[in-house]
Amino acid sequence: MSALRVAVLGVGVMGSYHAEALAGRISHARVTVVSDADTARAERVAKSVDARVEADPFAAIAADDVDAVVIASPGPAHEAQVLACLDRRIPVLCEKPLTTDIATAYRIVQREAELDAPLVQLGFMRRFDAEYAGLRALVASGELGAPLLLHCVHRNPAQTDTFDSEMMMRDSVVHEADVARFLLGEEIVAVSVKRPQATSLAPTGVSDPMLVLMETASGRLVDVEIFVRTGVAYEVRTELVAEHGSAMIGLDQGLLVRRAGGAWGGQLAGGFVERFAAAYDTELHRWVQAARHGTIDGPGTWDGYAAVAVCEAGVEAVRSGERVPVRLGTRPVRVAA
Amino acid sequence: MSALRVAVLGVGVMGSYHAEALAGRISHARVTVVSDADTARAERVAKSVDARVEADPFAAIAADDVDAVVIASPGPAHEAQVLACLDRRIPVLCEKPLTTDIATAYRIVQREAELDAPLVQLGFMRRFDAEYAGLRALVASGELGAPLLLHCVHRNPAQTDTFDSEMMMRDSVVHEADVARFLLGEEIVAVSVKRPQATSLAPTGVSDPMLVLMETASGRLVDVEIFVRTGVAYEVRTELVAEHGSAMIGLDQGLLVRRAGGAWGGQLAGGFVERFAAAYDTELHRWVQAARHGTIDGPGTWDGYAAVAVCEAGVEAVRSGERVPVRLGTRPVRVAA
Amino acid sequence: MSALRVAVLGVGVMGSYHAEALAGRISHARVTVVSDADTARAERVAKSVDARVEADPFAAIAADDVDAVVIASPGPAHEAQVLACLDRRIPVLCEKPLTTDIATAYRIVQREAELDAPLVQLGFMRRFDAEYAGLRALVASGELGAPLLLHCVHRNPAQTDTFDSEMMMRDSVVHEADVARFLLGEEIVAVSVKRPQATSLAPTGVSDPMLVLMETASGRLVDVEIFVRTGVAYEVRTELVAEHGSAMIGLDQGLLVRRAGGAWGGQLAGGFVERFAAAYDTELHRWVQAARHGTIDGPGTWDGYAAVAVCEAGVEAVRSGERVPVRLGTRPVRVAA
Amino acid sequence: MSALRVAVLGVGVMGSYHAEALAGRISHARVTVVSDADTARAERVAKSVDARVEADPFAAIAADDVDAVVIASPGPAHEAQVLACLDRRIPVLCEKPLTTDIATAYRIVQREAELDAPLVQLGFMRRFDAEYAGLRALVASGELGAPLLLHCVHRNPAQTDTFDSEMMMRDSVVHEADVARFLLGEEIVAVSVKRPQATSLAPTGVSDPMLVLMETASGRLVDVEIFVRTGVAYEVRTELVAEHGSAMIGLDQGLLVRRAGGAWGGQLAGGFVERFAAAYDTELHRWVQAARHGTIDGPGTWDGYAAVAVCEAGVEAVRSGERVPVRLGTRPVRVAA
Repeated sequence: MSALRVAVLGVGVMGSYHAEALAGRISHARVTVVSDADTARAERVAKSVDARVEADPFAAIAADDVDAVVIASPGPAHEAQVLACLDRRIPVLCEKPLTTDIATAYRIVQREAELDAPLVQLGFMRRFDAEYAGLRALVASGELGAPLLLHCVHRNPAQTDTFDSEMMMRDSVVHEADVARFLLGEEIVAVSVKRPQATSLAPTGVSDPMLVLMETASGRLVDVEIFVRTGVAYEVRTELVAEHGSAMIGLDQGLLVRRAGGAWGGQLAGGFVERFAAAYDTELHRWVQAARHGTIDGPGTWDGYAAVAVCEAGVEAVRSGERVPVRLGTRPVRVAA
Repeated sequence: MSALRVAVLGVGVMGSYHAEALAGRISHARVTVVSDADTARAERVAKSVDARVEADPFAAIAADDVDAVVIASPGPAHEAQVLACLDRRIPVLCEKPLTTDIATAYRIVQREAELDAPLVQLGFMRRFDAEYAGLRALVASGELGAPLLLHCVHRNPAQTDTFDSEMMMRDSVVHEADVARFLLGEEIVAVSVKRPQATSLAPTGVSDPMLVLMETASGRLVDVEIFVRTGVAYEVRTELVAEHGSAMIGLDQGLLVRRAGGAWGGQLAGGFVERFAAAYDTELHRWVQAARHGTIDGPGTWDGYAAVAVCEAGVEAVRSGERVPVRLGTRPVRVAA
Repeated sequence: MSALRVAVLGVGVMGSYHAEALAGRISHARVTVVSDADTARAERVAKSVDARVEADPFAAIAADDVDAVVIASPGPAHEAQVLACLDRRIPVLCEKPLTTDIATAYRIVQREAELDAPLVQLGFMRRFDAEYAGLRALVASGELGAPLLLHCVHRNPAQTDTFDSEMMMRDSVVHEADVARFLLGEEIVAVSVKRPQATSLAPTGVSDPMLVLMETASGRLVDVEIFVRTGVAYEVRTELVAEHGSAMIGLDQGLLVRRAGGAWGGQLAGGFVERFAAAYDTELHRWVQAARHGTIDGPGTWDGYAAVAVCEAGVEAVRSGERVPVRLGTRPVRVAA
Repeated sequence: MSALRVAVLGVGVMGSYHAEALAGRISHARVTVVSDADTARAERVAKSVDARVEADPFAAIAADDVDAVVIASPGPAHEAQVLACLDRRIPVLCEKPLTTDIATAYRIVQREAELDAPLVQLGFMRRFDAEYAGLRALVASGELGAPLLLHCVHRNPAQTDTFDSEMMMRDSVVHEADVARFLLGEEIVAVSVKRPQATSLAPTGVSDPMLVLMETASGRLVDVEIFVRTGVAYEVRTELVAEHGSAMIGLDQGLLVRRAGGAWGGQLAGGFVERFAAAYDTELHRWVQAARHGTIDGPGTWDGYAAVAVCEAGVEAVRSGERVPVRLGTRPVRVAA
């Protein structure tokens, strides 16, 4: 089966990131068309991913060389673009929000239901994060019993002054809303917001930080600290409290569980493939890019030779119990580092 | 530029892992030829990666549809295979060991030097691991001053009984030998081995664990605990001790640094792209695989709609200060979960 | 100055703990009188701390051999006992609550103010915990800027069925109320409570867990998860979020700070006295108890001798660069382990 | 039984620390006599602990008002002082080293054996540290199987130039020698030392850091990094590697265990007494000192009153589900903070 030909609509931060990933790192896909209201930006990204520009996003959606569409355009453009993709029955990856109001979002749900085919995927990327997936698996295992509370922290180091309390809800807390639904497996039925004294760095009238309280259908509670001008870093933390224990992610220590009896801890990687999976992929990725130009990008023969020499000495040291010198020949001048 | 066509020689654990990565996850590469002394295994892997089998590895190396070669065959086969690749001047990714003795390893170094082109990359994957790369960058920054000691721990949960003390050196400690050279930037000049009382799980005559001491050209010391039957997990840990501080990786907490004055700690991710880079790639990877079959593999329109509904309620709660119910329409029966 | 002679009123869990500490571990104090409505319990504790029993707590307060009073009786008894101590102008350590209602508590405040002498200390022991004290010092240093939020978790492994939602407030959350006042340096002006779905282990009608929200005079927000039937352990955690960073205690990692620029970490002990202060005190405490009976309770001469022998060998090994055997004489049979 | 009357011989850093602890924090003991070759220092310390000075340490040992002796004098003075105490058959706490050479140390062992009474305790304080005691208990439980290796790190931020490689052995590594014997329960039979390139901060001829290797009677191996000029902090870390798991202390995270199957973690405190034991003692200690002067040293009636007021509001909020204001009266001006 040949590579998926993708049109990317909107190539701001998120869209250009997706375009580059599809072109450079994701197998079996390539970007064929780029569309953006900012033509210069469209040209720049298209060139870097070896695609062409379509000024009209609907022309991009309709193009013969497009099998699927990534929608990263501004929210108000989403409804029409998603519906056009549904009309062509091609798969979509749509960045949040699906649309900017409930009524239009529901129309898309209904339209897709009429087609009886799941075609539109939303860009809630946390569901693909190993820690969140691990936390959901833990919940599903039933080991901790029924979930009761979810404590969330969502912090950004800085935001522009136009990022007001409503945007904090629509752009930031929206991730926790999806995380809560993903982890608890039920709908959120009510929302309250507490607006404490704001940081002096917040623009006038903007409540930053806020505490958002969400209630689920079965009466569970989700609290979210949203604080987007901390000056510190991007911090995303989630703690699930259940009847027989709790589990936390986002403390740079993997999935930490606290269990009946007071034991707390995590789980070590089982093997070298799990531990170094990303390193293996990076190794192959860089080697492939270099090999396409007839060279390498990593440790070379001298490194392999030196390792053999050390192991020889080591094996002799195992046998003899003595300190054994490593015997290295002269390093040829021309061999690359 | 078209995709790199790769021959994979040897498809045991490591070779088949590489073959599947090249076929499924690594852009711009595909596996065209598979070769293995075990023909059934070769057939099985070739089928799964959509390649053909060449019984003779040298025929694979010489094939017209091969641009580069991954060598994951048994060590004794490496010398001839690497030299054949050098003769054809095509790039190689060779799993350790380069060869099984110093003399042949040095011959390869010399042969490549004559060609004046770096073509052979060694499979020391730790150099591509973010923690090791971060540790090397820290050393290079000079912030901690000159390195003095390297403490390494290398543990496996289990090994077969044939994995004796020599194999522990050649197969396991070889990674620490390369890590030491990579981090300290100099050659190892001598090796000693301490063989304490062995675990009762070790076969007779096998020293497991061992403490391996390596000295570098400038007199630095590297100690390595190698223990391959712990029953616990795969544990790889490295602590670098320098004149003005120390740094440790492998404790599931990223790169932890201890600095002048007694401060210890790490560094948080700067932004959502850094924090969720792997999640974004996984999201795209799974979406591309599904989209090639005309569907999706992730959160759908109902999830997008529910998020919009929660944000609507949230924005109203920000404005009103009240608890606001979330208004959700009926979920269409046919929409996929 | 001679030892403080203390009367302990109420010797349930807390009172008997205090009595034993005063008698056994706290210098310059002894328990002279014990009083409890449960006479047998009073006798038992009095005997163990070498004190006498007074059935009437007011007789205990008035006794000639009492310089100060610890009040650990049930809450309803506090008002009269504290006032009696104030009448005698002797110092009091009163376990929470001061009294069981606002009016009587305020009367005590006023009575003490008339005397113009601080005589009544409350048993909010967290103020004396190194982590809480460190967190307050960090706030006071101004390094993190103005505090904005306080997230608290207070969990107990189990409680009796009589421990209802009101007791969760009065007995458990009361500590967080004091911690908030201690850390933020201002009064709490309003309280709200969220009662999510309860754990199935909670008695009917009891909301366990709850989320308690407290607002301070300047508009800061304090949220407290109170959950007293977790089955896990005693968990007390506090995170302070300020304008330029955040700090957390209670994760078994000391005081962890997240600062501008994304650095996170803690502070190592400066010296061996700080690191081993508790060990030194335990050593002396146990040695004193043993020495009073003419013996020791710790490592003995053989341990001292063996250490000397190892150091001798070590010094020779430093000089010679060789492996040096440790020369130990025969161990006398009669020397204690 | 009356308080133990202690003579402290030598009041440098360690001796004066012990003297102050015995006088101020340790129950049932007081310092009656202080002796030091530096008379001014002896006077200063004696005054602060309310003791008298004896210029002659043997007079101090023989004094009527001395029940037991702390020896913190220079090492060469230990032999005679310990023997004098043995002659009087009074208990001793002797700082390391027992004596400065093997022969004299063995004479003390023999002399004490003749008396058939353990009277001399050595100042190996780590045995009283909760983490070391916990590690020993874990070993004793047999849960991890037979110990195989002990990795130790011992770092000081700075030392004087006179602190040479021999002193690093006698003054610093001596602690690890005792720790190894304590944890492994057997004697050390040989020592080797590796002297890598020294830090540029080390005086000429001083090997700092060093790697010390100790072998036990049954063939276990102990490695110790000793590094006394790190500029960082006091760092003491010990990892025990056993047949079925490993355990580490000294990472500011308590006792961390890695077990069969790959689980890693620690143990939370079971209850509030365990968690806040030190806080309770500090609270009582400070209250007793203040109460002896007729006052308090901690939270007062206003804090107790404010807590009652918050709890009242909280209880009402539990009942009503509403936000409830906290009703506080006017704070009397005279009440202490």
